[in-house]
Amino acid sequence: MNVIYLNGQFMPKQKASISVLDRGFLFGDGVYEVIPVFCKKPVGLNLHLERLQRSLQAIHIQLPRFTQQSISIFKELILLNHLEDKNFSFYIQITRGVSTERLHEFTLDLTPTVMVCCKSLPQYSNEVLQKGFKAILMPDHRRQECYVKSINLLPNVLAYQKAKEVGAIEAILIKEGYAVEASSSNLFIVKDNTLITPPLSPKILAGVTRQIIIQLAKENHIPVIERNIKENELYDADEIWVTGSSKEICPITRIEGHSINAKKVGPLWYTINQLYQAYKQTEQPLW
Amino acid sequence: MNVIYLNGQFMPKQKASISVLDRGFLFGDGVYEVIPVFCKKPVGLNLHLERLQRSLQAIHIQLPRFTQQSISIFKELILLNHLEDKNFSFYIQITRGVSTERLHEFTLDLTPTVMVCCKSLPQYSNEVLQKGFKAILMPDHRRQECYVKSINLLPNVLAYQKAKEVGAIEAILIKEGYAVEASSSNLFIVKDNTLITPPLSPKILAGVTRQIIIQLAKENHIPVIERNIKENELYDADEIWVTGSSKEICPITRIEGHSINAKKVGPLWYTINQLYQAYKQTEQPLW
Repeated sequence: MNVIYLNGQFMPKQKASISVLDRGFLFGDGVYEVIPVFCKKPVGLNLHLERLQRSLQAIHIQLPRFTQQSISIFKELILLNHLEDKNFSFYIQITRGVSTERLHEFTLDLTPTVMVCCKSLPQYSNEVLQKGFKAILMPDHRRQECYVKSINLLPNVLAYQKAKEVGAIEAILIKEGYAVEASSSNLFIVKDNTLITPPLSPKILAGVTRQIIIQLAKENHIPVIERNIKENELYDADEIWVTGSSKEICPITRIEGHSINAKKVGPLWYTINQLYQAYKQTEQPLW
Repeated sequence: MNVIYLNGQFMPKQKASISVLDRGFLFGDGVYEVIPVFCKKPVGLNLHLERLQRSLQAIHIQLPRFTQQSISIFKELILLNHLEDKNFSFYIQITRGVSTERLHEFTLDLTPTVMVCCKSLPQYSNEVLQKGFKAILMPDHRRQECYVKSINLLPNVLAYQKAKEVGAIEAILIKEGYAVEASSSNLFIVKDNTLITPPLSPKILAGVTRQIIIQLAKENHIPVIERNIKENELYDADEIWVTGSSKEICPITRIEGHSINAKKVGPLWYTINQLYQAYKQTEQPLW
């Protein structure tokens, strides 16, 4: 996975460098996507590329042709990195480009910096998944417009780091008494056989895995409610999951010293995870 | 001002590049400072370097020796760029360094990326200053911990850009009905000959210019109150200023279609600005 794409060229990661005046480096002035791929089959490809365009539009970066272009970049990266039969993810980052001077203001004529690389996916064995994970709670210190998948990720990094330090898989973020999502995942709880997840709003990222789970649940007559989740509801939940393109659906069985479902992974996780794994197989391969 | 310092070396700006795996580029995982310099005299040098250490500490980057090291970097940059008798600013950016893979979590053994460059200071003529500036109001979309001077600046960039688009010098940020500061400046208002500025809290940056102004006001028996400022108070203010190391003290005479002090720069601005200009002269030169 050593070859990456940067601004029109394919090159070894070690040689891939950007100017110190790139606005991504100076201001975090850019957006990103992570697309999981299983044996040439990207999961939710169009959903990711559409969200990327929405993120770009929200911060006024024009790159309308990238959606089309990206497919040939993806193919080339798979070939150059010999990933035809591998599972990995594409990491795409687009910044506003290189300024001549470090000034907050920007002009619309900058050429965006485009980077695409491949990265490994976390591998959780069935044993680990069926034991469930620990999560911590952290105040949501992020910016307001979390629906934009921007590289302004310092609060996410610090929350995630805190989780890692205590052996937790995620930090669930609490905003004004409500659990909104986690540092790099969306949040679901199960109560009385109903799936509950916070509704789409600027406060959360419109997760692709979140969307697929909701769709699969509806198709399979599993009740889903999109509503805000109070922090206290977490402790009484029958199940808690954190979901994302890389980590997929991770069941949480311990949260801040409390056991969820007597530390057992709940039945709905098994059902939805099975549906999700099957769904992945139905995706179209890149070629 | 073409020569910059990057990770131990001095080099032309055009050659200064960083890895695409620098966490500053991937996550905005870094902090910065801007120190104005007038003919070798940095303004508030120690205050800036102390704040830099506080920012680094807040995000768990260890670089205790930089404070001492920085002085020789500054001197060398002045000499290499022939800035001995010029006015400019040092821009310092420190990121957590280069990861081997893009993962939120970090280890403490990374070598931070250190960049120092020189940039021009805005030059406002007396005529422009005495006419005053326009400002707009924008919702504060930034992260919670604004006391950390991090490079997670996308909300600041977007607010500032909005201001520039309508010919305003700044976007004053409104949080829960209060004017907290501006996109890259602190905020002062004058009411009944009293200087009012929001108190230090995680919501705002502890501005060096802010601190110097408060000190100068107190020394000169000008009443200063540090308290929250309601959005509505802006329209009734006798004077409004936005302050920062680069823009110094800029009087606002027009805000969202309202005139402040009948569009005239107020008397306290003249007093404090004069004191500030005199204060700059009393700073110690680097050599």
